[in-house]
Amino acid sequence: MKEDIITLGHGSGAGLTHELIADVFHKEFNLPSLDDSARISNRMVVSTDSFVVKPLFFAGGCIGTLSVNGTINDVSMSGSKPLYLLASFIIEEGFSIKDLKKIVQSMQQSAEESQVRIIAGDTKVVKRGECDGIYITTTGIGILPEDVNLSATNIQIGDEILVNGTLGDHSAAIINARQKLMLDPMPASDCAPLYGIVQFLLRTGKLKFARDATRGGIATILNEIYRETKLGIIIEEDLVPIKNTTKVLCDLLGLDVLYLANEGKLISFVSAMTQEMIGELKKQKYAEGAAVIGKVTDEVDGVYLRNSIGSLRPLRMLASDPLPRIC
Amino acid sequence: MKEDIITLGHGSGAGLTHELIADVFHKEFNLPSLDDSARISNRMVVSTDSFVVKPLFFAGGCIGTLSVNGTINDVSMSGSKPLYLLASFIIEEGFSIKDLKKIVQSMQQSAEESQVRIIAGDTKVVKRGECDGIYITTTGIGILPEDVNLSATNIQIGDEILVNGTLGDHSAAIINARQKLMLDPMPASDCAPLYGIVQFLLRTGKLKFARDATRGGIATILNEIYRETKLGIIIEEDLVPIKNTTKVLCDLLGLDVLYLANEGKLISFVSAMTQEMIGELKKQKYAEGAAVIGKVTDEVDGVYLRNSIGSLRPLRMLASDPLPRIC
Repeated sequence: MKEDIITLGHGSGAGLTHELIADVFHKEFNLPSLDDSARISNRMVVSTDSFVVKPLFFAGGCIGTLSVNGTINDVSMSGSKPLYLLASFIIEEGFSIKDLKKIVQSMQQSAEESQVRIIAGDTKVVKRGECDGIYITTTGIGILPEDVNLSATNIQIGDEILVNGTLGDHSAAIINARQKLMLDPMPASDCAPLYGIVQFLLRTGKLKFARDATRGGIATILNEIYRETKLGIIIEEDLVPIKNTTKVLCDLLGLDVLYLANEGKLISFVSAMTQEMIGELKKQKYAEGAAVIGKVTDEVDGVYLRNSIGSLRPLRMLASDPLPRIC
Repeated sequence: MKEDIITLGHGSGAGLTHELIADVFHKEFNLPSLDDSARISNRMVVSTDSFVVKPLFFAGGCIGTLSVNGTINDVSMSGSKPLYLLASFIIEEGFSIKDLKKIVQSMQQSAEESQVRIIAGDTKVVKRGECDGIYITTTGIGILPEDVNLSATNIQIGDEILVNGTLGDHSAAIINARQKLMLDPMPASDCAPLYGIVQFLLRTGKLKFARDATRGGIATILNEIYRETKLGIIIEEDLVPIKNTTKVLCDLLGLDVLYLANEGKLISFVSAMTQEMIGELKKQKYAEGAAVIGKVTDEVDGVYLRNSIGSLRPLRMLASDPLPRIC
């Protein structure tokens, strides 16, 4: 590693994060990877994540909804049923107890929506200026049904790539809140639990692999999958669902929606879903905007975006991400 | 709650922390208590804790050893065998990668000593000034043997109260490091895994309940136990093991060792251990200084300290603790 200090890029979820993980965590912890999730027995899945989003409250959610749904989603992507959550709070001296209650209430509501129980926690308080309001770390525990085995190794040439709705909504909400852009309609985060959608896809018998497309967006996830499978991926630009406001925001600030964070979107690899199945999927909660956006193919070696006139451009793993504290 | 903002006292582990937990977390999460540990099935125990200790490196350990042993100890107190650990990092921009590696290495060493595997993690980076170096949240998972049922409800009049060595060593090391007191010999933290000691005590057949005496010291733990059991407790001042340097430090700064934090000490309630058993206990690692320091009694209603001339003074639950970021 060239630099000897931590930079914001190391927390972006993009290339520098991967380097840091490879250089420090994999090596020291003797792990093939340091994912946020792990299977601890044949049937139990655990996942941990820290949430440092700024601002704490934003259209569509807050650090509380994010910290519950984010970890629930990590657990859900394996096909597991999330059951329990632990929550640890680092709070800055002077933080409003009213805001703390709002956050904790939203955590409980989110947990209840997913029938998840918050069972244990911890609270630490640091002096003014030693954290920025509140940081929350949640750990989720779920049970994996015996017949479920979702894995990137299941992915094959010809598989379709499916998302459950418009991309970039979470980043758009955070950017709008930070920059006070007054976009109309105001972008709202897509923060939502994805367990139900994974379960629906499992019932179709067509699901091979799913990942929630958070930090780094779908472009980063697709690159991670390419690194693992070495199978080519083409995304069709015209098929990518995007809200008009998000498009305006991207044009305004020169951002690429494929790298923006989502908090209620998964990217899934499926084999030959019928139109009827996709129609049924769209009736599921949080999947109204579901769309096939690309496929796994031997036409390319890497991850590519095809635009409306048919030209291909590579979607590379970014070294960093311009938006710290997105989640 | 009178104050409407978070104060350092809310993170002290003492009375204000209890109030905050009762007012915010218990109520919203619909829990009888928000402990750091919980049993999620008959045989699985989980625990989560955030570590914000300052300074990050101190005699006897660092935030890494603390974050692993602290959570391992929480899991161990139930009699469980800790097996897995998840670790989530919040790192300040500009933090030294060399120091990060030292911390991560010490985590791995501590995990190996306890045959615990670090299996998953997360990294977030925040801007300069948005945290103080590095904060680590760990979550531990352990398995409880079927025949073990340690609980404060097992405690009875006549039970003896046992510690595994000198008290206050962790706070002494932190205070010495912060205040640059140059005490000689330099106080070192007692940071250590306590699984082996709990297991030894279980094998004697005499153990009823054990707790690691961290934030708030043994006085806080004893008050928590009194609140739960309503059984009187007397601690004999002359029996409390304390290092000479810690005594000097307490005299110098007007501190009470019974409220100082430990990171490698447990307080256990046992019935009639023989001298031979205590002799054997002292041969266990991290238990050389083990001593019976008091008993459960109907002589008093509350938690009391008896000094060498026989007078009793109450050991109350403090509202706050003068030492933020002790762990």
